[in-house]
Amino acid sequence: MKLWGGRFEAQTDELMEQFNASIGFDWRMYDADIGGSVAYAKGLARAGLITPSEAETLIDGLEKVRQEFAAGEFEIRLSDEDIHTAVERRLYELVGSVAGKLHTGRSRNDQVATDMRLYTRAALGRVLAALTNVQAALLSQADAHRDVLMPGYTHVQRAQPVLFSHWLMSSFWALQRDRERLTEALARVNVLPLGSGALAGNALGVDRAFLAEELGFATVSPNSMDAVGDRDFVAETLFAAAMVGLHLSRLGEDLVMYSSAEFGFVTLDEAYATGSSLMPQKLNPDSMELVRGKAGRLVGNLVSVLTLLKGLPSTYDKDLQEDKEPLFDSLDTLHLTLPVVAGVIRTLRIHPERMAAALDDGMLATDLADYLVRQGVPFRESHGVVGRLVRAAQAQGVPLRDLPLDAYHEADQRFGPDVYTVFDMRQSVARRDSIGGTAPSAVALQLQQARALLNQG
Amino acid sequence: MKLWGGRFEAQTDELMEQFNASIGFDWRMYDADIGGSVAYAKGLARAGLITPSEAETLIDGLEKVRQEFAAGEFEIRLSDEDIHTAVERRLYELVGSVAGKLHTGRSRNDQVATDMRLYTRAALGRVLAALTNVQAALLSQADAHRDVLMPGYTHVQRAQPVLFSHWLMSSFWALQRDRERLTEALARVNVLPLGSGALAGNALGVDRAFLAEELGFATVSPNSMDAVGDRDFVAETLFAAAMVGLHLSRLGEDLVMYSSAEFGFVTLDEAYATGSSLMPQKLNPDSMELVRGKAGRLVGNLVSVLTLLKGLPSTYDKDLQEDKEPLFDSLDTLHLTLPVVAGVIRTLRIHPERMAAALDDGMLATDLADYLVRQGVPFRESHGVVGRLVRAAQAQGVPLRDLPLDAYHEADQRFGPDVYTVFDMRQSVARRDSIGGTAPSAVALQLQQARALLNQG
Amino acid sequence: MKLWGGRFEAQTDELMEQFNASIGFDWRMYDADIGGSVAYAKGLARAGLITPSEAETLIDGLEKVRQEFAAGEFEIRLSDEDIHTAVERRLYELVGSVAGKLHTGRSRNDQVATDMRLYTRAALGRVLAALTNVQAALLSQADAHRDVLMPGYTHVQRAQPVLFSHWLMSSFWALQRDRERLTEALARVNVLPLGSGALAGNALGVDRAFLAEELGFATVSPNSMDAVGDRDFVAETLFAAAMVGLHLSRLGEDLVMYSSAEFGFVTLDEAYATGSSLMPQKLNPDSMELVRGKAGRLVGNLVSVLTLLKGLPSTYDKDLQEDKEPLFDSLDTLHLTLPVVAGVIRTLRIHPERMAAALDDGMLATDLADYLVRQGVPFRESHGVVGRLVRAAQAQGVPLRDLPLDAYHEADQRFGPDVYTVFDMRQSVARRDSIGGTAPSAVALQLQQARALLNQG
Amino acid sequence: MKLWGGRFEAQTDELMEQFNASIGFDWRMYDADIGGSVAYAKGLARAGLITPSEAETLIDGLEKVRQEFAAGEFEIRLSDEDIHTAVERRLYELVGSVAGKLHTGRSRNDQVATDMRLYTRAALGRVLAALTNVQAALLSQADAHRDVLMPGYTHVQRAQPVLFSHWLMSSFWALQRDRERLTEALARVNVLPLGSGALAGNALGVDRAFLAEELGFATVSPNSMDAVGDRDFVAETLFAAAMVGLHLSRLGEDLVMYSSAEFGFVTLDEAYATGSSLMPQKLNPDSMELVRGKAGRLVGNLVSVLTLLKGLPSTYDKDLQEDKEPLFDSLDTLHLTLPVVAGVIRTLRIHPERMAAALDDGMLATDLADYLVRQGVPFRESHGVVGRLVRAAQAQGVPLRDLPLDAYHEADQRFGPDVYTVFDMRQSVARRDSIGGTAPSAVALQLQQARALLNQG
Repeated sequence: MKLWGGRFEAQTDELMEQFNASIGFDWRMYDADIGGSVAYAKGLARAGLITPSEAETLIDGLEKVRQEFAAGEFEIRLSDEDIHTAVERRLYELVGSVAGKLHTGRSRNDQVATDMRLYTRAALGRVLAALTNVQAALLSQADAHRDVLMPGYTHVQRAQPVLFSHWLMSSFWALQRDRERLTEALARVNVLPLGSGALAGNALGVDRAFLAEELGFATVSPNSMDAVGDRDFVAETLFAAAMVGLHLSRLGEDLVMYSSAEFGFVTLDEAYATGSSLMPQKLNPDSMELVRGKAGRLVGNLVSVLTLLKGLPSTYDKDLQEDKEPLFDSLDTLHLTLPVVAGVIRTLRIHPERMAAALDDGMLATDLADYLVRQGVPFRESHGVVGRLVRAAQAQGVPLRDLPLDAYHEADQRFGPDVYTVFDMRQSVARRDSIGGTAPSAVALQLQQARALLNQG
Repeated sequence: MKLWGGRFEAQTDELMEQFNASIGFDWRMYDADIGGSVAYAKGLARAGLITPSEAETLIDGLEKVRQEFAAGEFEIRLSDEDIHTAVERRLYELVGSVAGKLHTGRSRNDQVATDMRLYTRAALGRVLAALTNVQAALLSQADAHRDVLMPGYTHVQRAQPVLFSHWLMSSFWALQRDRERLTEALARVNVLPLGSGALAGNALGVDRAFLAEELGFATVSPNSMDAVGDRDFVAETLFAAAMVGLHLSRLGEDLVMYSSAEFGFVTLDEAYATGSSLMPQKLNPDSMELVRGKAGRLVGNLVSVLTLLKGLPSTYDKDLQEDKEPLFDSLDTLHLTLPVVAGVIRTLRIHPERMAAALDDGMLATDLADYLVRQGVPFRESHGVVGRLVRAAQAQGVPLRDLPLDAYHEADQRFGPDVYTVFDMRQSVARRDSIGGTAPSAVALQLQQARALLNQG
Repeated sequence: MKLWGGRFEAQTDELMEQFNASIGFDWRMYDADIGGSVAYAKGLARAGLITPSEAETLIDGLEKVRQEFAAGEFEIRLSDEDIHTAVERRLYELVGSVAGKLHTGRSRNDQVATDMRLYTRAALGRVLAALTNVQAALLSQADAHRDVLMPGYTHVQRAQPVLFSHWLMSSFWALQRDRERLTEALARVNVLPLGSGALAGNALGVDRAFLAEELGFATVSPNSMDAVGDRDFVAETLFAAAMVGLHLSRLGEDLVMYSSAEFGFVTLDEAYATGSSLMPQKLNPDSMELVRGKAGRLVGNLVSVLTLLKGLPSTYDKDLQEDKEPLFDSLDTLHLTLPVVAGVIRTLRIHPERMAAALDDGMLATDLADYLVRQGVPFRESHGVVGRLVRAAQAQGVPLRDLPLDAYHEADQRFGPDVYTVFDMRQSVARRDSIGGTAPSAVALQLQQARALLNQG
Repeated sequence: MKLWGGRFEAQTDELMEQFNASIGFDWRMYDADIGGSVAYAKGLARAGLITPSEAETLIDGLEKVRQEFAAGEFEIRLSDEDIHTAVERRLYELVGSVAGKLHTGRSRNDQVATDMRLYTRAALGRVLAALTNVQAALLSQADAHRDVLMPGYTHVQRAQPVLFSHWLMSSFWALQRDRERLTEALARVNVLPLGSGALAGNALGVDRAFLAEELGFATVSPNSMDAVGDRDFVAETLFAAAMVGLHLSRLGEDLVMYSSAEFGFVTLDEAYATGSSLMPQKLNPDSMELVRGKAGRLVGNLVSVLTLLKGLPSTYDKDLQEDKEPLFDSLDTLHLTLPVVAGVIRTLRIHPERMAAALDDGMLATDLADYLVRQGVPFRESHGVVGRLVRAAQAQGVPLRDLPLDAYHEADQRFGPDVYTVFDMRQSVARRDSIGGTAPSAVALQLQQARALLNQG
């Protein structure tokens, strides 16, 4: 069954049929498609275009089709071009020619846009929940290890001591921005295109505000030509998904490095690691490497759709059929990836003693400079003084705290014997107590703020 | 002058110096950099780290540097690694060693993040204004041509008649979504990173809430490790810019096609067209082609930054220096492109007679099918009937309205002599009066809604 | 069965198992995987690591597995992590513990690289054939319509008359470059990684030159660490595929425009067009729109892999598992798209009368300028003169040939009465007879050159 | 001066002029532009379109313009739209109206394509030389450290011991593939478009084969419509450049990690490192981080051009002006980056003792499994046995070599007292002597092969 065959004399080429068909992937939207049709049937009845009893017949039939899909019993035929055709074909079989009234004033152009928005809305809800779960895992681990110190790195060079919790929470906030972006995207997803027809709007008095209410859309699209061609919501969803992927790639990079023998700060639970087919000793952080790699796919899906949209004429063009697979793939990817990340975090084994062993005196060089600052030395000057002390210690192969007081004096007379009190990692951390700093007090505040955000949902 | 030379014995390689330097492009942030330093000087004084008179000296010096930049008199030296170094070097020359106190507790890591956010905030304000201007141009033209009919296209095939205003407004709404996205991005730009230090936070009691207030930031970053490495705001700005570019590429595609000899619906004003160096007759729509092409650059800049961020370890890595040029380029591109688009729209010459000539009876086939629907024929059936009539008319080489009543009868008995009343383009348009439809009444509502959005600003 | 479980105490998390598994897509490489194992079994025997009869047992078993796959009878188990595990597991079932000898000295790292290269090599062969087929279709149509004139466009503005064959052939040469690129990529695909082990090479005396010969690889990879991590051949294949996609998007853009009512130069055969679910009169060029849209997917797949590779450490990382789906998808896409394009071209209906009607005098303005050049007028000057004549004709609403001789004289005295001989479209075309020009003689040469390239294969 | 103003009545809008102008970046092609014009002047004379003395005048004038550019004395005017206009304007000033003859039969469409190809050809030559230089640096370091062992990693987990030289050479071969790709791209760059006119070819008898010879092009473009719109060579150059960037990002990732305190395998020379503005102790591997980050820009530039090309109609469209900046930027980036990488490699300080300290017995687990294989145990079985030994050793907190013989016996009876001979890192390495393996003998061969490739140039 073709929905459009009247004016055609010739058959579609077989390869073309296969090329053109989207049923292979758009069957996933069956629930959205049927939901949209149920609402539309009500709309037609409300507009007097079909009788209440016709509406009932249509809706009953549609619900049967929905059950067949849900039960895995729906049989897709070779000739079912897309999910819309498949549903309508089956509806015919079930309820007869009244099925032919369902498409009154509707076009596949507004129908597919509606289906995609319903599908995306539901999927984003699940993604948001999964994201929140990862955040909860981070928060819970951060809470459980509030007294663990680790080296903080910049440029993968030891920089300053920080709380392990502080490092964990740095990912929490990145994911919080993701939640914000996805939530904002959701608002632009949640707009009703149905009733836009092919491009010019509905001519038969269907009440679009009613349709929106039935389908839970917050607003009604204001321009029918825009509505059938607008795929901003796809691109925006893919962008927000790509950002999640990039944040997870950063977390993955850190965890892969931290679980190397050389760092040894953490070990992934065996449930989230794999071995080698050749080397019996290996325990590889495959989960987080694969998570890191997923960023490629998520960025690629975004670029697929951006490239697709570039230079397209307005309203609907068949090219737009290519918007679905990347969208589905990115949503699936997040759906699969996020619980794995949550699992990795929740089961992560932490080695505070290895972290402690990696804290060296050089990481207190800034604190040493601050010592002089408190004596009134301009920071730039004290930075230079300490730089030379670092070099001296390195030349002698000793930690900074083992340089004799003479060496300090020589570097700058304002160093007193109390300079050695600087060499206390916990004190150094505790001093960074401004908002967002790594001091236990500031981190406690941070955790509290984070908890509040999670409780908000 | 290097800000970091103390522990180094050797000189930087000359090529490396050139490779490493960012002053060639980050000088643009001088105003943000100096503004940030002025606030920081106040913060240092407030924390008792410098005296009020030292603060005054620093601020006076900084303002002098700002004036030198503004007047184009600042001399960049080869050794000025970046804008921060350049400003601090010059400050030294102007106020002496007190300049060395300005960097107390501050790192280039939090400083550059602050500068970029200040710069982006200001630039986004300008972009939003320019976007609004394009919308105003579209609205004004739509308002001025409310009675012009044109063929609406899907698949670049004539579909149904629409109002020219309706087509114009389809771009208005796309740009409205862009404004929403940019405004939401702005909220995530407007967060203070200053006081995060290199990665661990500020140890010297600088009041970050005060800094935020001084610099007009709405919130303070909650985690210092996240704050120095977070470039979400760059990626998000670039994405929102790319979407603008894609919308304009769609408008460009339509206008290039509509200004071809074959369509002939519009002519670009000569002020926005160019000729050919070889062919004297040519008037090319260069402006809109170039606009369409800018989408490539905007998408490319986005991908640059997404690729850059992929797999980076947490906190600050030098790779992040590569975030600036794509950001600047996309902001500049919008800044240059949007006024051209506004100019093209405002000066567009419209040829209603060519549009009218392109309206053929086939475009009323849906209306013909609706005629039968109103007689109780299921739409699918009427669609098939009309498809056959279209084929018949085509075979006879006549428009639909010239088929004799017999032909209609033969196709379906329910056609009466009043079938010929269907062939009225204006009536067809007027029937599509649901929300978002192309009927004059619906478009009037649309224009009103649009006007309200512009007035909101 | 895990290939690597010995040192593990805990079970893999179930979600992780699903996340980690690649069997869902890498089963496609079964033929390559088994082919590679057959060669490796021979290699092991040759090195004396297994007996000839063990080799025979292994090879017989492998061939049985291959048959099961080919016949669609292979049953994939939930625990089959990847195609390598699946094949080895089944081999065990068929031949018992000797199966455990097959992996001697081999790692999945070199195995998967080998499989992918074998798979890609075969797929590229098919793509090259399909590309050649499209070229043949273009050539055949170009040959069949050597006397058809059409307007040549730049900027979608009528520029100069050209042969329709010339336009068709412009795509031929683009696809010829694609064939070159794919052929060159093939040379870099055709390199043996097997025998590189996990990363350090083979320690058991397996003869890699022998393996290469068995598997038809032209060369042996020179560095084992590079060999297991090298995915250049994937990226390069994806790039070459993306270029094909972009060329087809250009052809699609032209054909969509040329089949609009306004241009009317061609009609797609109904076998390659579809109708509208709402508008009975529509015949949409869906095939070529979808072809145009495929460019998005092909570029996206390339970006997926480039992003994936960015910043990865050397040798094998699990991230690399993400290289397969985009590779498969791009190869499949070309495999499906190219025959459709060939079909569209072969069945294209051409309307020479519409093309002829679109040739207007303005398109001979360059020829008019050349007339003066032949009188010794510098081209720049003649360009200006003709520009003014064009404006005059336009102002009077007449074609250039209808301007009186006076008007020509007034514009430039050197115009004689023979100026009207310029207005001959075929003459204009015939004059462009340099290599690569649109003159029938030059196009004949072009077709000859193209035919030779196709005959080369 | 406009090259195309004749038919225009109105002035170009000022913003549009700025938007449209490319002189801001295409002035770089002055040498190519002038070189192309000199050849074209000769071609015009040869075709009898200008006299020999006119040709001489033109060529002398052009050479003067070239000198002005080379000396930095050329004054660009606001009205110089592009480099072609600028050169022609100046030529007018120098030689008068004969300058107007230079553009006879030429269009900016074929001119700009010619300029870009000449420019790219020259730049690629320089890039290839710089690439070879990096390879030479790698080879020289590999040669100098042939006896240094290091841990080889997969998944950033210690895997098997390898030669440091082997690791270095893994980048050599990746860059060798880059050289191949760039060389093959060069062949497609080196094609003459000049003489294609605006799109239809040259009508005035200019000898294109002569022009190709004059300009050193290997072939002449076979289709004028293709020639003016073909930007494959840009995309291909950008792809090849992106691959270089990705290879360097991999090297950067390794070096950043290897120069961390935790690995400590190498130290970047201070000439290629920088310090911190806040932390006096820091020595950051900025050079290689920035190198890693450049991959983003290179991939972004590629995507810019791919997106640009997507869906463009055939022949020349103004959009194509956007091809230049990404091309220039990628070529510049390689030009700047490659020498820095060469410098980093040449001056790299290597710490063999840290590498040696990181070799642990677990890395010989595969060798232990191979011990059993040599006793006839199927590899899969021996892999499992050794896996359990690894676990046992780990449980007891001892290296594998410290497990008593009993433990080995218990695990598998076939272990004899000679099992302890396995624990020799150098022996392990020496055993991997197949082609491409890490054994000193195999690496020696590799170096020899590499040297031969460099000597070929």
